[in-house]
Amino acid sequence: MDRLIEAIAATQNPSVVGLDPTEALVPAQVVASFADEIADEVEDAADRPAAQLAVAYFEYNRAIIDAIADIVPAVKPQIAMYEALGPAGVDAYTMTCEYAQSHGLYVIGDIKRGDIGSTAAAYAGHLGGVAFGAGESGPYDPWHEDAVTVNPYLGTDGITPFVEAATAADKDIFALVRTSNPSSSEIQELELAGGCRVYEHVADLVERWGQGTVGQHRYSRVGAVVGATHPEEGRALRARMPHTFFLVPGYGAQGGTARDVAGMFDDAGSGAIVNSSRGIIGAWRKTGAYSETMSAESALDLVADAARNAAIAMRDDLRAVMP
Amino acid sequence: MDRLIEAIAATQNPSVVGLDPTEALVPAQVVASFADEIADEVEDAADRPAAQLAVAYFEYNRAIIDAIADIVPAVKPQIAMYEALGPAGVDAYTMTCEYAQSHGLYVIGDIKRGDIGSTAAAYAGHLGGVAFGAGESGPYDPWHEDAVTVNPYLGTDGITPFVEAATAADKDIFALVRTSNPSSSEIQELELAGGCRVYEHVADLVERWGQGTVGQHRYSRVGAVVGATHPEEGRALRARMPHTFFLVPGYGAQGGTARDVAGMFDDAGSGAIVNSSRGIIGAWRKTGAYSETMSAESALDLVADAARNAAIAMRDDLRAVMP
Repeated sequence: MDRLIEAIAATQNPSVVGLDPTEALVPAQVVASFADEIADEVEDAADRPAAQLAVAYFEYNRAIIDAIADIVPAVKPQIAMYEALGPAGVDAYTMTCEYAQSHGLYVIGDIKRGDIGSTAAAYAGHLGGVAFGAGESGPYDPWHEDAVTVNPYLGTDGITPFVEAATAADKDIFALVRTSNPSSSEIQELELAGGCRVYEHVADLVERWGQGTVGQHRYSRVGAVVGATHPEEGRALRARMPHTFFLVPGYGAQGGTARDVAGMFDDAGSGAIVNSSRGIIGAWRKTGAYSETMSAESALDLVADAARNAAIAMRDDLRAVMP
Repeated sequence: MDRLIEAIAATQNPSVVGLDPTEALVPAQVVASFADEIADEVEDAADRPAAQLAVAYFEYNRAIIDAIADIVPAVKPQIAMYEALGPAGVDAYTMTCEYAQSHGLYVIGDIKRGDIGSTAAAYAGHLGGVAFGAGESGPYDPWHEDAVTVNPYLGTDGITPFVEAATAADKDIFALVRTSNPSSSEIQELELAGGCRVYEHVADLVERWGQGTVGQHRYSRVGAVVGATHPEEGRALRARMPHTFFLVPGYGAQGGTARDVAGMFDDAGSGAIVNSSRGIIGAWRKTGAYSETMSAESALDLVADAARNAAIAMRDDLRAVMP
């Protein structure tokens, strides 16, 4: 986790921007501006709307990345938003990851993968550990992610391949522990016969999975996803998992505040990075400056400026509550 | 689940072939046969080995599909194997799904997705429910899956969007309940304060998620993944989940036998479909008929013949234990 922690220190900003585009978040004229190009390039008319949206997603992300790369340490594209468009969306996802890396950002691929051991090893190819295609420039790395999120429901043998791939490539993973959604309590909060909750048991597994990968800055390569919507639990997990870095979703649009996440940092103000998606990438919709008659270029400028301002506001909001 | 159950009845075969290619499973001459084509078409030399393997995966799958389409009801491509190759692999995955559907097979996309509600709705695009791009031929469906597997760790709001998409498109989902891997006990078998195990609690949630989607053949659109490596638990789950169809991995290479899965069928011999991957698609390696000097075409013929024979043997093995 050293690379992420150093990027946070360099920007003095423990926040990550979720690049989770939807059709509603991208100004309509940006999407429309690609109509001719797509009509020329995509043979099957049925594939054109998705292909057009995928190209628009990448341009939208690019404008946002350009605007925030000097003030935030990391981005977190949510692959679901891209998979919704089919393979064309997956291309936009990897292009986004590559573009963000090329601008010095640490890229957390929010892919929440998880499967049995031999299959998990294939998924771990997301971290670039696949043998074939290794060349002079190192192992083949088509996804361009610095970390990925993983699901713990299958247990240790589903996680070990990711830890091995992360270690080989100087990358990291984040395992789901306590998610930010309303229904997360249905399984995660169940009380076990031994007294603790399911998510606490998972927390102990995650802390164990990281053993042997602790870096210079005290945290292992196996982080945990802990939602901002559970501040008391987050505080207790911080104490329970001393070597586990937290990825904290749920700030902003989902209702979590800076005060809610304050307890997820350690005494030195490290130990967590807080995600905001719509609050940053959709900030343009709350400026009052948008007009349907704007050019696509002006609309992207508005998206970029609003994202930068919102990212600065979030950074300052978090700084105010940090130890 | 009606379409799957009817396909099983038509073939009198409750088995599904896992299309999980790996570099080791595809004869080397098949991969080599695409070298020139890829060198011409793929600009960046670093992308060529993965692109070449992706094309070989599709040809390999195509040979297998051609050989088994009249005797099995379904295939289950494991997307991890394709994601290991990056976006080129994802293309091979969707092409495989489309080809299998065009041969009348029911396609279970083994994607094990799961996320919070709004994100799950994007993933549910795998089932073709996405609004944009809807045309005269119905909603846009770039993934060509008839069902997908999902992970339950996030609870109801992460599953509901899949159920809605499945209902709209006459498709199905399978939620992980009790997986076949050795470490699955670490979380799934934990005893709860109320007395039951985590996987039993998840089983009850899955049964509930299916309510309101029960089809003509008594089963809902929300199936369960129950590993063949847990025969006693499978038998008990069969009684506990009367409206939940089972997808049973772990037969064959993972050690599960026909006797182990017998209890997962209902009294009428319905209620479950059993997966085998390597045991079918890698059967050519055990024939003794392979030679490195064979042509690519002959090697694919061997793959196809061996897969067909193995699929028939599995069908007959299962028929022998069914009620």
